[in-house]
Parts: sequence; structure tokens; C-alpha cells
Amino acid sequence: MKLKVRILGLSAGRKPVVILNEDDAREIGVRGSSRVEISYGNKKIVGIVNLSKSLVKKGEIGFSEEVERRLKVKENESIEVNEAPFPVSVEYIREKLRGRRLSKEKIYQIVKDVVKGNLSEIEITGFVVALHSYGLSLEEAANLSLAMVKTGEVLKLDRKYILDKHSIGGAFGDKTSIILVPIIASLGYTIPKTSSRAITSAAGTADKVEVLTNVELELEEMKRVVEKTNGCLIWGGALHLAPADDIFIQVEYPLGIDPLLFPSIMSKKKAVGATHLVIDIPTGRGTKVKTIGDATLLAKDFIELGRMLGIKVNVAITYGEQPIGYTIGPALEAKEALEILMRKKIVDDQLDKVLELAGILLSMVGRKDGKELAYKAWKSGKAEKKLREIIEEQGGNGKIKPEDIPIGRYKLDVYAKEDGKVFWIDSKKLVEIARMAGAPKEKGSGILIYKKIGDKVKKGQKIFSVFAEHENKLDRIEKIVEESRIFGIGKKAEMLISKVKDGFEHKKQFILER
Amino acid sequence: MKLKVRILGLSAGRKPVVILNEDDAREIGVRGSSRVEISYGNKKIVGIVNLSKSLVKKGEIGFSEEVERRLKVKENESIEVNEAPFPVSVEYIREKLRGRRLSKEKIYQIVKDVVKGNLSEIEITGFVVALHSYGLSLEEAANLSLAMVKTGEVLKLDRKYILDKHSIGGAFGDKTSIILVPIIASLGYTIPKTSSRAITSAAGTADKVEVLTNVELELEEMKRVVEKTNGCLIWGGALHLAPADDIFIQVEYPLGIDPLLFPSIMSKKKAVGATHLVIDIPTGRGTKVKTIGDATLLAKDFIELGRMLGIKVNVAITYGEQPIGYTIGPALEAKEALEILMRKKIVDDQLDKVLELAGILLSMVGRKDGKELAYKAWKSGKAEKKLREIIEEQGGNGKIKPEDIPIGRYKLDVYAKEDGKVFWIDSKKLVEIARMAGAPKEKGSGILIYKKIGDKVKKGQKIFSVFAEHENKLDRIEKIVEESRIFGIGKKAEMLISKVKDGFEHKKQFILER
Repeated sequence: MKLKVRILGLSAGRKPVVILNEDDAREIGVRGSSRVEISYGNKKIVGIVNLSKSLVKKGEIGFSEEVERRLKVKENESIEVNEAPFPVSVEYIREKLRGRRLSKEKIYQIVKDVVKGNLSEIEITGFVVALHSYGLSLEEAANLSLAMVKTGEVLKLDRKYILDKHSIGGAFGDKTSIILVPIIASLGYTIPKTSSRAITSAAGTADKVEVLTNVELELEEMKRVVEKTNGCLIWGGALHLAPADDIFIQVEYPLGIDPLLFPSIMSKKKAVGATHLVIDIPTGRGTKVKTIGDATLLAKDFIELGRMLGIKVNVAITYGEQPIGYTIGPALEAKEALEILMRKKIVDDQLDKVLELAGILLSMVGRKDGKELAYKAWKSGKAEKKLREIIEEQGGNGKIKPEDIPIGRYKLDVYAKEDGKVFWIDSKKLVEIARMAGAPKEKGSGILIYKKIGDKVKKGQKIFSVFAEHENKLDRIEKIVEESRIFGIGKKAEMLISKVKDGFEHKKQFILER
Repeated sequence: MKLKVRILGLSAGRKPVVILNEDDAREIGVRGSSRVEISYGNKKIVGIVNLSKSLVKKGEIGFSEEVERRLKVKENESIEVNEAPFPVSVEYIREKLRGRRLSKEKIYQIVKDVVKGNLSEIEITGFVVALHSYGLSLEEAANLSLAMVKTGEVLKLDRKYILDKHSIGGAFGDKTSIILVPIIASLGYTIPKTSSRAITSAAGTADKVEVLTNVELELEEMKRVVEKTNGCLIWGGALHLAPADDIFIQVEYPLGIDPLLFPSIMSKKKAVGATHLVIDIPTGRGTKVKTIGDATLLAKDFIELGRMLGIKVNVAITYGEQPIGYTIGPALEAKEALEILMRKKIVDDQLDKVLELAGILLSMVGRKDGKELAYKAWKSGKAEKKLREIIEEQGGNGKIKPEDIPIGRYKLDVYAKEDGKVFWIDSKKLVEIARMAGAPKEKGSGILIYKKIGDKVKKGQKIFSVFAEHENKLDRIEKIVEESRIFGIGKKAEMLISKVKDGFEHKKQFILER
């Protein structure tokens, strides 16, 4: 069917969307989300159909920016539009929907079509949910990782060893990367660290580092920073490493599923050329992985998957029952990390975690005294110097002082209602409060904690403060703090966790930060 | 955040889509497919976010027709836009994604949100695929059926018995409904039959009836026709009976899955008030259900589900190894049905199927001589008279003659290449050819069959003809007919069906017509 082009200036991301009048679509024999083949001169592309009664008239076809750019066509030109055959990858998605294992070639074809925008949202969702419900083998996970690397940009560094570190998330207030990267880099090892922004937490590493310096670098700039300083701390989102992952995550997040955990993490590590990788699996109530048994199984899979991809992987299963350090929120956490590196503040749990992970990485490349080496790099100030170098190279002020970092000017202090000892802390509730206070968007918002598990508390003592950039946010929080039990303080352990009654509705929280 | 309204004239069906500039979306903290809460005066609605770089500028929000209509807002007005909480039904979909059974209340909430347009395509797909991969209990199927009825229109007829018939599809060339409905109606029983159009076949019942009369009636018109004639033969698509099904089908079709088979069928029967229903399960190679064992299990579930919904169900498992009658394609099939009702053409298998199904229905309402009664209604010409009445009431010409029905003027005859007997017929291939010839869109296109299973054939005898409205369509078909074996003709049965070699790619065909 011949149709007249209308340029709509609509962008649907990578998707080559075209808008058809409902009558024309029926005549061509397509529905919403179907594909049409559009021919113009000797060019032929596939468009994904959206329907409209009014935006385009009968006899017209509306082009999104993506289609306009690919076909280089002008308003009012006449083009040929026909029903397109399904891309072959749809057949492979249907195979997975019948519970079958997919070959390397089929997985590559699916990922390629995802990145090229050839698949509809329904088909991509079908694939992701099929992976979730039927599971994926380690071989499929490896092939997915490789396909995701192959369809994106890669960082090419001329170094023998490329070290990397990743946390699967769920340990709140964790500043490990900001401290570990300069330690490793100061010892002469290369560590091109990319991080994410918060999705459901109060601060991703990228959000925290952004308080200190610029994190939105292009791949070429990243390369320059790493070649100069051995390290970097940047946001992975602008680099187009494994772009398929950004598309998959848009399906996973609303559905609260995470079947691509392995490929998502490993593809990004492979794309920066990592040879040695330490993965942190925080374990405990409130984290993603609740038991040490589960964490160990997960660890084994990571190690095996690394072997398949040519990355040496070690895993650290770490304690995640309470926030790491004393802060939650971008500015507060950035400040604490800087203070730790400057040896101005001693934060035992945070420092211990950093030194253990750095020790593992160093021992993986043959250094037997890894943890000790890391300790010296910290103690001597070499690591601090390195962080300042990285800050400077990424475009920030290398001379930044902790007191330069602005914290929200409005504060709510929370006091203990009884004497006793802290038995537990509801980390998730703290994160929820930090988000209500404005984090991660308002960087100065967050929480400062004074007491942690095992600490003695007296009635009326301050246990934590909430900071906000806007005063009105604290009103709601005051009420919530009043109503909830966030710190378990008592004379002796209380055995009852919760009473479950008829009609009770449990909402399972979903954490997706990788 | 305050944004200025831009009216875009874009329609996304029922979905309340709004278009945000990417920068604003980031600031609000939402992504594509997320929801925003839009407040205007004392009205508050939820919109589904699409992103654009250029269609709306920073500080603007684009409204689809749906949102404009609901909020009654004008261009350039200022409105408040914030991140919206997830609808509670997303939580229920997540439950199903963890493999759990859903309660009646939760299912109703999901279906309600689907119909109201509150759920994104990702969430609806997540639900449908979860139903596919984890399965649904009969109780869930019953509750889905009821929820789908409750969220749509219903036909209210003041009759004691309301009879109905449904085929799960896959028997090609089947004209049962067109002949059965007038038989039943002529005997004084009420049968408000709705049918679908072809999706993957060469002709749905609605496509065939459309050759004889108007099938796109509104619910009120349908009611009038049924009250006057006791029956009708109309397209179900315009009636808004169980509208959720139309939305689910848009997910099922591209993914080649059919988890809502039961609720889809039963909700529409419940919505017309059916009290007695016969379900036809065609069984054999090329149909949906391959074995009698599978068909029997399916039948038991239909009967049990009917019991839960207050519909008395009987099931007919029928022979589906070859096309029913001698025609495939809207006009050819309509013509054959008319000829059968006029007793001008005797088509044994088709007539037998009609009489058996009619007999079952009649015996369900207490008539012991059901099949005999049906035969008499046919033989006496009462059924033909009733069909003409229905045609007339639906807006067609009640005096229509078989020769008035236009058949495609271009023809390709296909001849036997050897002497022997017909052992099998590849019905699916015939359907594929009929579609290539233009069916179901070009109603005169289709296939006329001269030989069926068991018939003797001489080399050079015509075995079938392909009809087309446009000559060029026959060229490709000629080549395909030359290359494929569509009729299995031989002196004796050949035992080898197919050879499977290395590198062979099997494409499983998906039939979704309900």
C-alpha cells in the first residue's frame, strides 16, 4: 500500500516506530505492535506499528525520528508499506517460551534484534519473563553476556591485568568502591570502575561520586582518565557498554524480576576488558541474598561464568545486616568516604570491607600480602592522593575538603525511647526515609546514624538524624519515624519478629541495582 | 513538577499515554512505561509515560486523546505532574510471576486495571506470560472469566434457555456455525452466536457470514435480531463483550502462546448469557489438539469450568485430519454453506458434523431425538428459511442465491501426478495457499477441493483449484504447489513421514482463533 509520509518528531528511543491510521492498518493486515516493511527508493526497513485515529489520516504514515533518520525521507513523499514477516528472533523467543534452551547463535540474534529496535516491547518482555520462569543455564548466561558485549561499545586498554569490583547490591550506605578504586590504582593496578545510579536505593555509587566530581564521561574520556591515573569512578549509563541491558532492565524493573542478573553484570565487566574481578555479595536481612547458603551457590555460578568468559572471579560474601558506616544519601556518603580516605574518621566496618576486597583482588594478581598492602596504601595517604587525582582528571576539584560538601540544612533528630542495646536495624526503612527526604535526587538529603548493632543506648540519646534540603519533607518523615520501629533496642533479645494475622498483605520489595 | 500541556492528537487505544521530555522525566524520577500522577483542578489521573526528545520541549507534557478527554484540559494550561505509585495490581502480577495462585479479588483488580488502561504493555505481557509458564488453576480460569465478563458489556435476553456453540478452531473449511445456528433457531431455541474473524486461518466465521450479510452489529441491534429470529451470526469484535480479551490477545498472538484459552472462550459465552454450550474440539494432524487423549482432558476442564460458571457444557471431539467440506476461503465457504442449507449440494462430513453438534445441544435441553430433529429442520427447508430471515434482519438480502456470490475470476488448477488413493491432505498448506491467494481480505479468493481422504485419483485428474481476485497472486502459488506435496496420493500407505537432518530448523506454527 502506498502511503504519504508525515514527520512527527516523536522519539521512541531506539525503536523504529511508525504511526498508521487504524483503517490503513486493518487493510494492510497489521495490528498495534506488528511490523511493517517500508520501502523507499532502494532502502527497505522494518517499522513497529502504533495505531492512531487522528494523528495521521487515512493514506498517511507518521514517522518517528528513528525511521526518518534511517530512511532520509521528507514530508509528503510517497512510500510503499506492507506487512513484514516476523524477525527470526521472534521464533527463538517462542522456543524459550516453550521452555527450551537456546543456542549461542539464537541468543545472539535475539540480542542483536533487541539492540537494533527490531523487537516490540511485548516480544522483549516475553523473552525476559521466559528467562525468569524457565531459568537460564550457565551456558545461556555466558552466551547472553557475550552477545551483549558484541552489540555494544568496548573499552580497549593496553594493560596486562585489568581489575574490577562489583557489588550485587543491597548493602546500604556502602562506600566500598570510592575507597577501593584509589587504593588499587595507587598500587599501580588498572581498575576502570563503572557504577550505576540508584534505582530503588538512596544513592548509587555514581550518585555519590557525582558529589565529588563529574561522572558522565564518554568512553574516550574514560580511557584517557584510566590511562593517566590507572582508575576511574564513572557512571556506566552513558558509555553504551552492553546497551541491551538498559533495554532489558526497563522490563525487569516494573515486573520485579531479575533473570539477567548474571549477563548484566558480566557483560559490563567483559566490555571494559576485566581480567580479574571480585564480586561482593552482601548477605543478611534486607539484602538481596538472605542466607550464606544461597550466597555460596550464587558465588559458585559467578566463578564458573567468569571462567567461561575468560575472567578470573573471586567472590566475597559480606555482612549486610545493617548499613555500612554511618551515612546514607549521596552527599553524606561521599563525605564519609572522603573522610575515611583522609584518615579523619575511623569507620571500622567500612574500612575492613574495603581492605578485605582489595586484598582479594591483589592476591588474585599474585600479591600474597594483599590486605596489608591495601592498608598501607590507605594509611600512607597514597590512596587519598590517588582519589584526588581521579577527581581532578574527571573534571572536579582535586582539593575538595569534607566541609565543602553541602548537606541538607533541615534536620530531624531521632532519639531512643528506652535504655538498652541495639539488636537490629531496619536498613530498608532507613533507605525509605532517606528517599522521602529527597535522596538520591536532592544530594544533600540523607541519614546520619549514631548507633549501630551492639552499641549501648540510653533513653533520650540521639540514634540518628535525617537531613533534607526542603523543610516540608521532614513533616511526613516525623510521623513515619513515630509510628515505626527502625532500631531494635532492648535489654535482651526479643524473639517475636512479627505477628501475621488474617487479611494481612505482604508486599515483597524488589531491589534492582547492579 | 509544573508542566505546560500540549495536545498531541495521538491515540494509544485505551491507554492514558503522556509524552514527557527526557530531561523532565529524569527530574520527576520516571522512565518510559512508568506512571505519573497528573493533577488538574480537583481531578487526578494516572498517565503512562512515553519519552521524547523533540515532540515535547522541556517544561511541556504531551497529552494523548485519552488523557485530554479524561482531564478536559486545554493547550498551554499548567498542570502538576508527579511520580505515581504502582497500581496495586502490579503487585499481584508480581505474585503470579513468583508462581503463586491468585485470589478472585486480585484477578478482578488486574483485569479491571487492564481494561481501564492503567497497566503498561510490559506489565500486561508479564501477566500473560506468567499465566503461560506457571499455568492457571481452573479456579483462576473461572475467576478470570467472571472478571472479564464484569468489566465488559453483557447481552440480556428474557429466555429460559440460551444455547451456544463454540469451536476451539483448527478445522479448516468448517462451516458448522452458519448451518447449525439456523437449525437450532428454527426449532424455537435461542442461539445468539458471535464469531471471530480470521487471524491465522483463511476465513473466520465472521468473514464468511459477511459474504451473505452485515456482521458488524452493535449489542442493541444484536438483541433485536435475536429477539425476532431466535438467532444471529455476528462478529463479536464490536460488542465489547469481555474487552480484556482483545487486549490479552494482542500479547498472546506475537508470542505464540494461548494461556487464556479457557477464560477467553467462556467469558464471551457467559456475557451472552449462555445456559447450554456445546464445544467442538477438532482433533488430528494440523489442528490445535493432536490426540484424542489431549482432547478428552481439555473437554473435562471445559465441562468443569462451565459448572463453576453456571453454564452446562458438553464437548464434541471431532475429526480434523482434513478440511471440512470442499471449500476454503470466505466466499467459497459461504456459498457451500448456503448450498448445503438449500439441499443443493450434499456434503456428508460437513452435514454430519452439524447434525451431531445440533443433536448434542438439543439433547442438553431435554430433546431425546436431537439429531433427528436437526435433520428434519434441515431437510424440510425450515433451517434455510431461518438463515434467510437472519440474513435479512442483519441487513442483507434474504433472497441471496449461491450464484450471486462472487468468486475470484483467476484460477489455477492442480492435477494429480500419479494414480492411487488419497492417504492424507496437508490442510495447513492449503490454508497457507488460500491466504497467499488473498483470503481472508479478498473474499473471493480461496480453494475448491475435488478429492478427499480415501478417494481414488487418476494421474492428470484435477485435485483442487485455487481462486484469486488478482492474477499476479497465482504466480507465486504455482511455484509453491509445484514444490510441495499437499495431497498424499499413492498405491499403498507410505510409512516415512519426514527425514530430519542436521541443521534442520523447525518452525512451530501457532493457531489462535477462538
